[in-house]
Amino acid sequence: MNTPTSNNTPLGVRNTFAIGIDIGGTNTVFGIVDHRGDIQYRGAISTKKHSLVEDYIDELYQAILPAIEQVGGVDFIRGIGVGAPNGNYYSGTIEYAPNLNWKGIVPFVELITKKFNLPSALTNDANAAAVGEMMYGAAKGMKDFIMITLGTGVGSGIVANGNLILGHDGFAGELGHTIILPNGRQHWGTNAKGSLEAYCSATGVRLTALELLENNKEDSLMRNYAKEEIDSRVVYDCAMQGDKIANEVYQFTGEVLGKALANFIMFSSPEAIILFGGLCKAGDLLLTPTKANMEANLLPIFKNKVKLLFSELKEADAAVLGASALVWEIKN
Amino acid sequence: MNTPTSNNTPLGVRNTFAIGIDIGGTNTVFGIVDHRGDIQYRGAISTKKHSLVEDYIDELYQAILPAIEQVGGVDFIRGIGVGAPNGNYYSGTIEYAPNLNWKGIVPFVELITKKFNLPSALTNDANAAAVGEMMYGAAKGMKDFIMITLGTGVGSGIVANGNLILGHDGFAGELGHTIILPNGRQHWGTNAKGSLEAYCSATGVRLTALELLENNKEDSLMRNYAKEEIDSRVVYDCAMQGDKIANEVYQFTGEVLGKALANFIMFSSPEAIILFGGLCKAGDLLLTPTKANMEANLLPIFKNKVKLLFSELKEADAAVLGASALVWEIKN
Repeated sequence: MNTPTSNNTPLGVRNTFAIGIDIGGTNTVFGIVDHRGDIQYRGAISTKKHSLVEDYIDELYQAILPAIEQVGGVDFIRGIGVGAPNGNYYSGTIEYAPNLNWKGIVPFVELITKKFNLPSALTNDANAAAVGEMMYGAAKGMKDFIMITLGTGVGSGIVANGNLILGHDGFAGELGHTIILPNGRQHWGTNAKGSLEAYCSATGVRLTALELLENNKEDSLMRNYAKEEIDSRVVYDCAMQGDKIANEVYQFTGEVLGKALANFIMFSSPEAIILFGGLCKAGDLLLTPTKANMEANLLPIFKNKVKLLFSELKEADAAVLGASALVWEIKN
Repeated sequence: MNTPTSNNTPLGVRNTFAIGIDIGGTNTVFGIVDHRGDIQYRGAISTKKHSLVEDYIDELYQAILPAIEQVGGVDFIRGIGVGAPNGNYYSGTIEYAPNLNWKGIVPFVELITKKFNLPSALTNDANAAAVGEMMYGAAKGMKDFIMITLGTGVGSGIVANGNLILGHDGFAGELGHTIILPNGRQHWGTNAKGSLEAYCSATGVRLTALELLENNKEDSLMRNYAKEEIDSRVVYDCAMQGDKIANEVYQFTGEVLGKALANFIMFSSPEAIILFGGLCKAGDLLLTPTKANMEANLLPIFKNKVKLLFSELKEADAAVLGASALVWEIKN
């Protein structure tokens, strides 16, 4: 057995480690994490490259193996935690994930347990991020909070009484698909009209910008870009330069998000709502209208009580940390 | 010490009992409940009569005392559970209940514990009904369900992972006040526009009937009643006689309720939603449009999975049973 190069403590008191894996549509990132939440080794492979999940797991194994050796070998690894889109904690399967190559129901935990010969657990990526935030981030010590990820899509992880709400089938927490403006904008994937994700994702922000530019004759810095170029980053850059219509995009996005958050608060009365993901770069541009609309739509007993916070974890780290945290919950 | 008249088993194996108290705006009902959920003794007093909570508790004590003696005296009572509007489990207080005479924050558990010299616990009435349903009714054995009470108002009790969701402050589960149709009908009490309660309570049904009658020139049995007489009972009677507009009232009520339930399902993915309260008398008139609209607004992964059920408990019993069930949770 090798000994970890970075650790000279005697064998008996040496920490064990957990592997955290975050499967995104494009890339998969992983880390070897110690009990304190420090990521000792990091790595990444392409998710998209493999049309067969078995080939993907083979490459993942080859990529992680050197890191496992670095911490002293497989005997020092307690297990593997995975965050994946449409990941189901109860069944250990990835089910009909629209952004992954592997179709149908993939028995991911079974496959990875066999390959690595380590106990494994899996949940969806937003739940994993919520667990990461609870153990190591802005929700440390909280028993009731909601994490909302504002990225390509809108995901969520809900914690109540100190536990993830998974629901009877493991699919709880699809807050991005709740309808906030009935008969509103049609979602490009689900066809539902007026869902949170249709407005408060990167795509939603882009669509709002295009709509406002079309319905408005005023000058805008955004008119210097071709329609195809306008995305949430362009909106941000223009808003920061004081562009009025770009600022209205955030105003409207915050209005929809604030209304949604008010409804969520009246469901589970969380201590905090933690915002996470690419759109958070907008900072107060998004936070100010969101908070105002959230408060305006709350019953008096909920007003001015719920913290609205940005994640304290690096985006890349949160999901890996959260996934790794699942390991400490696995019953051996 | 008296012995229970209805129980001839020897002292050592005799059951202990729990007192369940359900505080309504008009009346308070109570029962002495055994461990199997059988209500051994029942009674009621007026809630409205007393402007001082201390006087109310005095009368409650006098009313319950004979029943306590009937089961063998206070030594056979394990404790008291209370369901009350705006009841807070964590603090044991009733806070700013709009339909009660006692204003501000009432330290109800403290007062009742002192008077009865028994451990006591309190939660809101909808949560108590949910616990009753979980222990003795349609949700028996379920770990994830939502109970919606459709009465004078719309209340809710949410169970996830086998526990009530109380939130960080004890006020979770105000689903009646979530906004389902933004900028819709203004609520008579909260002034919010488009909340579930504005449509799916008895008052909401009445207002929908009045609106449809006004915006519609067609004949209707409901036109035989004066405006002030039209309430949810009249709507029901006319709908049962085949009245078209009365049927449209249920169609619309079910549309709003179904949309709301779809959002709730995407939050906590419950095994079932249990409907409870006066409006449930409408049976399929309400259930059919509700279910159709619920399913139509769900993501595919949730479709045709969630049971939509009516409560199996008598309305009067559910809250008393649920309140009494809190007693078995009290740590002595």
